[in-house]
Amino acid sequence: MKETIRCAVLGLGRLGYWHAENLATRIKGAQLVCVADPLDGQAEKVAGELGVKQWTKDPSFVFNNPDIEAVIIATPTSTHAEMIKEAAQNGKHVFVEKPLTQHIEEADEVIATIQKHHVMCQVGFMRRFDSAYAEAKRRILAGDIGQSLYFKGVSRDPGSPPPEFIKNSGGIFLDMAIHDYDIARFLMGAEIESVSSQGSILLNTFMEEYKDVDQALTYITFDSGAAGDIESSRNASYGYDIRGEVVGTEGTLVIGSLKYHDVQILTTNGSTHDIVPAFPQRFQDSYLHEMTHFIDCLRKGEKPSVTEMDGKIALEIATAAKKSFETGNRIFLTQVQYGSAQIFK
Amino acid sequence: MKETIRCAVLGLGRLGYWHAENLATRIKGAQLVCVADPLDGQAEKVAGELGVKQWTKDPSFVFNNPDIEAVIIATPTSTHAEMIKEAAQNGKHVFVEKPLTQHIEEADEVIATIQKHHVMCQVGFMRRFDSAYAEAKRRILAGDIGQSLYFKGVSRDPGSPPPEFIKNSGGIFLDMAIHDYDIARFLMGAEIESVSSQGSILLNTFMEEYKDVDQALTYITFDSGAAGDIESSRNASYGYDIRGEVVGTEGTLVIGSLKYHDVQILTTNGSTHDIVPAFPQRFQDSYLHEMTHFIDCLRKGEKPSVTEMDGKIALEIATAAKKSFETGNRIFLTQVQYGSAQIFK
Amino acid sequence: MKETIRCAVLGLGRLGYWHAENLATRIKGAQLVCVADPLDGQAEKVAGELGVKQWTKDPSFVFNNPDIEAVIIATPTSTHAEMIKEAAQNGKHVFVEKPLTQHIEEADEVIATIQKHHVMCQVGFMRRFDSAYAEAKRRILAGDIGQSLYFKGVSRDPGSPPPEFIKNSGGIFLDMAIHDYDIARFLMGAEIESVSSQGSILLNTFMEEYKDVDQALTYITFDSGAAGDIESSRNASYGYDIRGEVVGTEGTLVIGSLKYHDVQILTTNGSTHDIVPAFPQRFQDSYLHEMTHFIDCLRKGEKPSVTEMDGKIALEIATAAKKSFETGNRIFLTQVQYGSAQIFK
Amino acid sequence: MKETIRCAVLGLGRLGYWHAENLATRIKGAQLVCVADPLDGQAEKVAGELGVKQWTKDPSFVFNNPDIEAVIIATPTSTHAEMIKEAAQNGKHVFVEKPLTQHIEEADEVIATIQKHHVMCQVGFMRRFDSAYAEAKRRILAGDIGQSLYFKGVSRDPGSPPPEFIKNSGGIFLDMAIHDYDIARFLMGAEIESVSSQGSILLNTFMEEYKDVDQALTYITFDSGAAGDIESSRNASYGYDIRGEVVGTEGTLVIGSLKYHDVQILTTNGSTHDIVPAFPQRFQDSYLHEMTHFIDCLRKGEKPSVTEMDGKIALEIATAAKKSFETGNRIFLTQVQYGSAQIFK
Repeated sequence: MKETIRCAVLGLGRLGYWHAENLATRIKGAQLVCVADPLDGQAEKVAGELGVKQWTKDPSFVFNNPDIEAVIIATPTSTHAEMIKEAAQNGKHVFVEKPLTQHIEEADEVIATIQKHHVMCQVGFMRRFDSAYAEAKRRILAGDIGQSLYFKGVSRDPGSPPPEFIKNSGGIFLDMAIHDYDIARFLMGAEIESVSSQGSILLNTFMEEYKDVDQALTYITFDSGAAGDIESSRNASYGYDIRGEVVGTEGTLVIGSLKYHDVQILTTNGSTHDIVPAFPQRFQDSYLHEMTHFIDCLRKGEKPSVTEMDGKIALEIATAAKKSFETGNRIFLTQVQYGSAQIFK
Repeated sequence: MKETIRCAVLGLGRLGYWHAENLATRIKGAQLVCVADPLDGQAEKVAGELGVKQWTKDPSFVFNNPDIEAVIIATPTSTHAEMIKEAAQNGKHVFVEKPLTQHIEEADEVIATIQKHHVMCQVGFMRRFDSAYAEAKRRILAGDIGQSLYFKGVSRDPGSPPPEFIKNSGGIFLDMAIHDYDIARFLMGAEIESVSSQGSILLNTFMEEYKDVDQALTYITFDSGAAGDIESSRNASYGYDIRGEVVGTEGTLVIGSLKYHDVQILTTNGSTHDIVPAFPQRFQDSYLHEMTHFIDCLRKGEKPSVTEMDGKIALEIATAAKKSFETGNRIFLTQVQYGSAQIFK
Repeated sequence: MKETIRCAVLGLGRLGYWHAENLATRIKGAQLVCVADPLDGQAEKVAGELGVKQWTKDPSFVFNNPDIEAVIIATPTSTHAEMIKEAAQNGKHVFVEKPLTQHIEEADEVIATIQKHHVMCQVGFMRRFDSAYAEAKRRILAGDIGQSLYFKGVSRDPGSPPPEFIKNSGGIFLDMAIHDYDIARFLMGAEIESVSSQGSILLNTFMEEYKDVDQALTYITFDSGAAGDIESSRNASYGYDIRGEVVGTEGTLVIGSLKYHDVQILTTNGSTHDIVPAFPQRFQDSYLHEMTHFIDCLRKGEKPSVTEMDGKIALEIATAAKKSFETGNRIFLTQVQYGSAQIFK
Repeated sequence: MKETIRCAVLGLGRLGYWHAENLATRIKGAQLVCVADPLDGQAEKVAGELGVKQWTKDPSFVFNNPDIEAVIIATPTSTHAEMIKEAAQNGKHVFVEKPLTQHIEEADEVIATIQKHHVMCQVGFMRRFDSAYAEAKRRILAGDIGQSLYFKGVSRDPGSPPPEFIKNSGGIFLDMAIHDYDIARFLMGAEIESVSSQGSILLNTFMEEYKDVDQALTYITFDSGAAGDIESSRNASYGYDIRGEVVGTEGTLVIGSLKYHDVQILTTNGSTHDIVPAFPQRFQDSYLHEMTHFIDCLRKGEKPSVTEMDGKIALEIATAAKKSFETGNRIFLTQVQYGSAQIFK
């Protein structure tokens, strides 16, 4: 096993900063040697805070540094394909935020490059590393609810991101529901065969301009014969509401209570606990665990449990769901598989 | 206010028997004077148990009895239309189990007859009388969650009824989801404008023969601009699972905890409470409350809060949902309104 | 089995009225033939509301009425002993509100009279008839938590009764904790051997005048070797808070969630459910069930499950707890058993 | 602010190891330079695992090392006094596991030495650093429950430690209830004025030999006029059960749900979540947070929020509680304050 993995983080927005902080201070076996961000002074500032020796505005500085073994890509989605390919061509392992890329063709190119250069790639589906989802998976595999019949997912954001984000987000199916498509595959142990989507604008009228909606519903069927539904919403004024459920032949399994602090206050207004306000509070540990997994895999030379192929499949499902919403038709996944039939078998 | 309402119950299956028992022993102002059932000896047996003076196998005996002011119809759905019309023509007020009728044309005739003879009619949507749903309505009207944006309903039976029941049930949309369509209108304070349905057979393969499914999903939009989804399932091995949720601009409201006895047992296996096993345990009080409401309305000469029009609208929604499932298309409700445009405004 | 039990209610305060209402309208086999209350016009008013044919201000009118088989005594505690004895001497069965009497000597006389005249007596420990406590008992007997080791009870009133009530209440141990002493015996299936009490005035300073406290704690040991503690409080501003717990060798069992309506409201203030506000909402069904049990027992000629002996034992425990609080000493129950050693074996 | 604090851990049992691991891998600003343990090979093994450069079997090696600024004392309680004094005399700051010492006289000496040598001392009351307790404190200070009236604590271990541990533990009041005495002071913002204790052996008969019990109850009064009770138990077969409650004039605040993973499984056996099995799972984060606080304080030159004085007060309360149990008397805290009257005012 390798002692240390020498890493660089590309993109120092909120997520990039967390990854950098985790690598610098909380993950045994990781060494953060460089941080990069195009914004004036941002990389230098973060480097100072975290005690990182090198910083740059230029990604190619990272790619050309033979000392760096792995890159964490937290740049805008539109740059993912290029970044991953450059990294792979320079022999660097890749951790990339979801979605893998914005278009399926790009995903195919990315996958080909990764495979050609024999680097490893992990995609940032952090929910798989949340203790509740991981325990759910364990209980399902242990047979505690029998055979899995139905997946039910709810993801609600406490509000919509601003128009400029929505504009480049790829829409609610690619930006948000994609987490549920991945976790549905993970928990059901089956592949999604068809999707059928609906959506509405309930509050954020500006979305009409971008042909996006703030409330969506996806009905899914699996190749195992199971089915499911996924609600995606930007309208949860009350907090960050992520729920999952798997109904089996012998029981059902429900994930998530929305409770934040384990404190209950009872007054004449009733009995109240506070609610997880946003995703950092809900998934903080998951971000640490997924990065720890990435580093551990690199140290041991093992393949991560969630790879570029999972990234591509989730992208295909999301793309199909978007098309279903636009056309009003149910979409079978084989219709959108560009030369990747092997993935589903 | 009238002292007493003299009633008869038609049909003494499980629900009919409960109605009879409630009328005979728990509802002030009700007098159960006759029970009727075609099955040999059934009416006499029930009459004996409940101290009812008259019993019969023949509904016309009830309709022709000038002493009877109100009839409770708990006979098979296929007979509802005829029973209600006969009752109305004989000047008797009507309580009828859901669905009002099996076909929309019948519903129109029934409504015309009721209106012509100036009798009152209440349909058995008992959920409206459940303390949790009633409190939810009160809290929504009080503005506690702001404007209502999204309705989410889940109804899961602990297993499928037998094939002979499914055969005549009208299918999952008319037999089961109809409760959610009604409660969605009730809680959202808005009319359903469109439905879009999906369904699968997950466990009960015999359903294929009857073109029915054991798992359905309906996406709904309201004339208020709101939307929603309703899951209907026959596959909840673990118990009777009825949930409701209304997401508003300032919060969300969740109905139902599935807890049966208020006892928590903690062992090395975890912390466990028991689950409501089936609908009698969940809605026993609602059946009493709806019947008390019916009798109170008759005593005071007031219109019940849920009438034949609510029965017809729910039937229209369910019929449209079934059609959407069969065709794969989204159905706008105006397409299926046979001469009842006035209902929706 | 007798068809009907002819009853009278003595004392038409809140509890007496409920008992009368339950007997008149909700209990099969009960016939309420008379109501009595010393207050001008009260008995007549209640008789009118409930359709009762006889009413009186004079209890002896009830005792001398040979037509009455059973009396429900809901008069002030100080009159219980006299009322029960008169009823028994006239051959009438007795339901009496807790406590049985205010003094142990009275209890002995009352028990002797009841036994001499061969009437039945049930004491109003209604918690035993609550569905949660009854289920708890069933689960304990089923062995779900192994051998019972520790009882934990909490009873909190939403506020103190007024000084005039406290003055004649017998104090927090006799008026309030007595419910927990009884339910502790019921759930643990063992007798209390010793009590050790503490108390404080936390809010209601007027209690000092009556040598009472608004917050008490009783440590108890059982003849089975088990132990327990009971908190009694008048200071639960937030609602009516009744909890019970039995810790066993293989698990623990917790009773009571304080939830009132099964509705959860989530806003930016958190996730809230309402709380049972006071004892009517919490124990309404229990009052009906205990009275139904009383009538059923009389109809079948069976002994009620909670009798005058349970009333006396609870009184002994409460009296000992009060003495422990006053002296600062632990009291062993045999010290206060005035000639009733047989009860504990 | 200092860049780094150079630390050594004395005693590498379970807790000592955690502290070492946290210092070595998770706390920014800490540098673990030495580990010490008398057991053959233990210090060397831990040093290897955590990449620590120095190890020893001899504490004096640590005390004499001028390079070490702070020591973490996780040795047996009987050695605490000597260890702290040696550390202080050598100018080293001290983090010491609870209890501070086993005897009050020792505590006085320790405090005098600490103060004389101007070092800082933090005692390991880690519950104060648990997110639920910290949030509870915040909500109480924010006035959310009004004035604090009553503290209720429950601490239950999943089983008794072995006889050899019990023998040297100081008994249930000093070993276990001491956490609740400290947290009661913390949450109530008041000092404990009197204690009155009871106890029983419910399961572990061997405790008789050591005059210890496996179930204890302490009634406490505060100098604010408030009161409270604390249950301590070794008999919670079902898991590790830590609860806290503060009743205020305007509400009550309940800490702790015992839920471990946020997963609910519903089968025909009911709805189940798993339970925190033992203290590592419950307080893992608290151990990290308390040590982070210690290091942060040393870096900033600030006094920790929980010091040797808190350690001594908790010891006094526990000692009084033990005496109350032994004598059957209520003990007022001033009776046991050996020259430390200044603490309580």
